[in-house]
Amino acid sequence: MAQPKQERAEQTRRALLTAAAEVFDEFGYAGASITRILKRAGVTAGALYFHFGSKEDLAKAVMNSQPETLVPLLAAGGLQRLIDLTLVWSWQLQRDPLLRAGVRLTNEQASINGTLNADPYENFRGIMVGCLHEALESGELQPGVDPVVVAEFVVAACTGMQMYSNVVSGRSDLPERTQQMWNLILPGLAVPSVITRAETSPARGSALMP
Amino acid sequence: MAQPKQERAEQTRRALLTAAAEVFDEFGYAGASITRILKRAGVTAGALYFHFGSKEDLAKAVMNSQPETLVPLLAAGGLQRLIDLTLVWSWQLQRDPLLRAGVRLTNEQASINGTLNADPYENFRGIMVGCLHEALESGELQPGVDPVVVAEFVVAACTGMQMYSNVVSGRSDLPERTQQMWNLILPGLAVPSVITRAETSPARGSALMP
Repeated sequence: MAQPKQERAEQTRRALLTAAAEVFDEFGYAGASITRILKRAGVTAGALYFHFGSKEDLAKAVMNSQPETLVPLLAAGGLQRLIDLTLVWSWQLQRDPLLRAGVRLTNEQASINGTLNADPYENFRGIMVGCLHEALESGELQPGVDPVVVAEFVVAACTGMQMYSNVVSGRSDLPERTQQMWNLILPGLAVPSVITRAETSPARGSALMP
Repeated sequence: MAQPKQERAEQTRRALLTAAAEVFDEFGYAGASITRILKRAGVTAGALYFHFGSKEDLAKAVMNSQPETLVPLLAAGGLQRLIDLTLVWSWQLQRDPLLRAGVRLTNEQASINGTLNADPYENFRGIMVGCLHEALESGELQPGVDPVVVAEFVVAACTGMQMYSNVVSGRSDLPERTQQMWNLILPGLAVPSVITRAETSPARGSALMP
């Protein structure tokens, strides 16, 4: 029986997104040619322009798919959910081209269209604010801690940690650095009982992965 | 009386470094032409190649001059010295082209020569490790806090904060974000008396500036 049309279109879209991520990850935005992306995906130029209007739109789709690949892996709620997000991210960044390309494109984005685009940060920020509001309502946060301030700091710190880790270890020490971040910031934001039970080890991130 | 030869050479070198920083800051590495840098500096191509072997060497000199512009402004010792470094940096990044170009080039460096260069991070890291060792010897740190781990985290967090702040506010909120970082991490690293007396307000960074 033939595949339904919609299912085939979705498969083509995923193939294009994955191929584009691999090529952007390897060559950067400027060095990524449409021809190479099409060859890698095994699809026609027509299919590309049907799903994505341009190379720029394709890059935006790659950047915006960063958090959605991680959320289904999160097991806990509240503050532990936020910790899990960063632990899983620190592992997945080493092996998921879609996530890695998203990071590279975010860093390079000033050269894509001359204007800076906050979307990739905002997507992560939104998920983190959600976790922290849940933490606040469950009494996990110290009085006066602002979920938005914490979420924006964690987004920023993770951005910088992956850059630093990439330069010094090709990102292999990122899970350990993520744990060190939590050891440093938990005492400033969580109540003592939550600090005691929080699990921040790289092994937890690894165990949550698919 | 004529200027001594050495003094003139140093003036030319500074003029080239400043002009290159302005052009790198505005156009990025790929977009910065030697011609434009020479015109801005008002010097000859011979002078450029006498002081800096190539555009790549000029970019490296700009990247490596990041911390040396800040250190003379620091007033305190120990942990407050580290806090002051980040506060002054958060202000200077908004107005010093040399510092701003260093940051842009560091972000872009993968495209400069294909290999990643840890020097700009290492320079800041070295200064921070020095402050934290002094803090450790003065009893300012909690037991078990590793100066190297903290220094590397602060370098990474500042890197990410300036990127995030650049996207959302053109870096105008960076001093406030720097204060928020210290509010979050001081409880995890300093002894209570140091947390109480630490000055982290943006106004302090502004007061230390030239």
